[in-house]
Amino acid sequence: MAATRLYLDWNATAPLHPAARDAMLHALDLYGNPNSVHGEGRATRAAIEAARRQVASLTGAEPAHVVFTSGATEAANMVLTPEFRMGRTPLAIGHLYISAIEHPALREGGRFPKEKISEIPVTSDGVVDLLALEAMLSAHDKASGLPMVAIMLANNETGILQPVYEAARIVQAFGGIFVVDAVQAAGRIPIDINEIGADFLIVSSHKIGGPKGAGALVSRGEVLMPKPLIHGGGQEKGHRSGTENALAVIGFGAAAVAAIAEFDSRNAAVAKLRDRLEEGMRIAASDVIIHGEGGPRVPNTSFFTLPGLKSETGQIAFDLEGVAISAGSACSSGKVGESHVLMAMGCDPKLGALRISLGFATTEEDVERAIAAFGRIAGRRKPAGAAA
Amino acid sequence: MAATRLYLDWNATAPLHPAARDAMLHALDLYGNPNSVHGEGRATRAAIEAARRQVASLTGAEPAHVVFTSGATEAANMVLTPEFRMGRTPLAIGHLYISAIEHPALREGGRFPKEKISEIPVTSDGVVDLLALEAMLSAHDKASGLPMVAIMLANNETGILQPVYEAARIVQAFGGIFVVDAVQAAGRIPIDINEIGADFLIVSSHKIGGPKGAGALVSRGEVLMPKPLIHGGGQEKGHRSGTENALAVIGFGAAAVAAIAEFDSRNAAVAKLRDRLEEGMRIAASDVIIHGEGGPRVPNTSFFTLPGLKSETGQIAFDLEGVAISAGSACSSGKVGESHVLMAMGCDPKLGALRISLGFATTEEDVERAIAAFGRIAGRRKPAGAAA
Repeated sequence: MAATRLYLDWNATAPLHPAARDAMLHALDLYGNPNSVHGEGRATRAAIEAARRQVASLTGAEPAHVVFTSGATEAANMVLTPEFRMGRTPLAIGHLYISAIEHPALREGGRFPKEKISEIPVTSDGVVDLLALEAMLSAHDKASGLPMVAIMLANNETGILQPVYEAARIVQAFGGIFVVDAVQAAGRIPIDINEIGADFLIVSSHKIGGPKGAGALVSRGEVLMPKPLIHGGGQEKGHRSGTENALAVIGFGAAAVAAIAEFDSRNAAVAKLRDRLEEGMRIAASDVIIHGEGGPRVPNTSFFTLPGLKSETGQIAFDLEGVAISAGSACSSGKVGESHVLMAMGCDPKLGALRISLGFATTEEDVERAIAAFGRIAGRRKPAGAAA
Repeated sequence: MAATRLYLDWNATAPLHPAARDAMLHALDLYGNPNSVHGEGRATRAAIEAARRQVASLTGAEPAHVVFTSGATEAANMVLTPEFRMGRTPLAIGHLYISAIEHPALREGGRFPKEKISEIPVTSDGVVDLLALEAMLSAHDKASGLPMVAIMLANNETGILQPVYEAARIVQAFGGIFVVDAVQAAGRIPIDINEIGADFLIVSSHKIGGPKGAGALVSRGEVLMPKPLIHGGGQEKGHRSGTENALAVIGFGAAAVAAIAEFDSRNAAVAKLRDRLEEGMRIAASDVIIHGEGGPRVPNTSFFTLPGLKSETGQIAFDLEGVAISAGSACSSGKVGESHVLMAMGCDPKLGALRISLGFATTEEDVERAIAAFGRIAGRRKPAGAAA
């Protein structure tokens, strides 16, 4: 292991942003239960409501339309349900159409039974196939209830942006409900729930520099809402019970403020670093395949295959070089399996791929170090690589 | 408001224990995703597994039988479900029998439909009626599936201990599943899942001096498990998906260690303080009614009614005196409604009641100050009180 570690796995989780850290250090003393009406309770409540406004800003939503959850996975399980309410009137959702490259948190389909879930295919460039979506919605049986469609804004493995603006128009034309997983897009590309035309957005704290343990289900309005997943004391206006995780929510809010304030500088810098990384990798190994390089991607992600190098082996080799990166998605409980994203793109998943993802603390030196490590690992491949 | 505030609402939430705070300050730098296989991920994983052993110790369980959740409410919603599995075989639960004094997190019945939930009555001393439980289980229709019974170990409002050991034997005799909410008991009375004979225990971090945002569903074995509430990446052995809230879990573990280490000294001191508090209140207002004083209670809680004082008014009066206490339970999202616990005990809920709950940081001076505030408030009652 190298003397100092180099963390280039920001899509798996981001180190705490200094602003989030500061906010949390102050919040350690805010111990009141936000549901208590005494002074201590009201102080915590005020901090949570400030965080709600901050997270709302990140997504262009009204603060009243932000429901805090324990994370994006919970938010996905909350919104993906056949049981909705329009005000007090039950509203049935008949079928869930979900892209083949969604994160497992959505791909599992939440509370939909398996037979009510269909997969929207993606093209070989890793983009959701809108013609297929349109055909699927045309064939939707309205008698069973409304259609629900879930498509992510940016894929967690490839970083490839998905055509959610166009998809929203299609879903609206069929009277459906549109859910957008914005977890990997937040802070990296502009997001506005109204501009997108999504009914729901899902965001996560720990992907933008906030702590783990907080996420949000953001809605365009507050009339159409899913049946709660977690019942009890009626917190979050009855949408999500349980004592609010004040500390995490406050850190989430601070990270959102930082993501907005540093948006331009952060992403311009990261894009430049990512371009240099890919240039360096191509020079070190001309046979490297960079997935999705032709189309729009979030600026921080590079997903690549090095022929002759298994992704698991590659990840361990980087780890031994002191560089933390991912083999595919890291969000699946330590499983290093075949990438469903590569498979959906029509690539051979056995080939595997590695993901390097950068963040606000990544420097030019970091990238040069990553390129050097890449070069050494590429040079050691069994079927002699391109360069050493 | 007084110069310094006095917090006597520990059943609503406990201030962070210094040990939890220290552990969390160190953990702020543990940013790796615990599901990543690189060094950063493994470091976070190791800390989470240490916390799992610590929380297991608090409940007499095997570490492998602790599933971390975002809190007790989520754990309750996870375990209260008609859909269980015995290994890979589905197992149906036909009906949920739940005590009338459970916390709303359990009273809502999780994933059971309303028609499959029955309430077990309590006697006028606030204790679950075991004869009624036995009669209900005798009449249970086994064809619909197994019965599930949920009874709390200590009531959150009154502090009254419930006969869970005896209840466990009854539930076992009928082949049922027994769930014990140990949220208010943890750290205050000894808990051992095997000695109790419960199938599941629910515990919460922020009631024992850990941070909000963590709880656990603790099981006696690992074969019989509920259908997951939150699906996705397969974390927590598939029982609870979503990136683990490492920071909160680490604080939870540290609070559990402190609760075990300080168990005797903490509870002996708190019991003495509570007794002095109740003595002082009786001297200040001889007509005060202390609910459940005759039977076994957790050592830190006093739940009382002051005739002529509405509980909401009383709570505000204490708040203005600088003392944070609760009117009934504080866990219901700011609602100050009638106490379902008082109602279940056959008391007039309109009377209302106030809860003073002490903790490890409460001092003799704090209690004298609370008694003095109580005396002033009692003296100001409309129908002239007993003393000033």
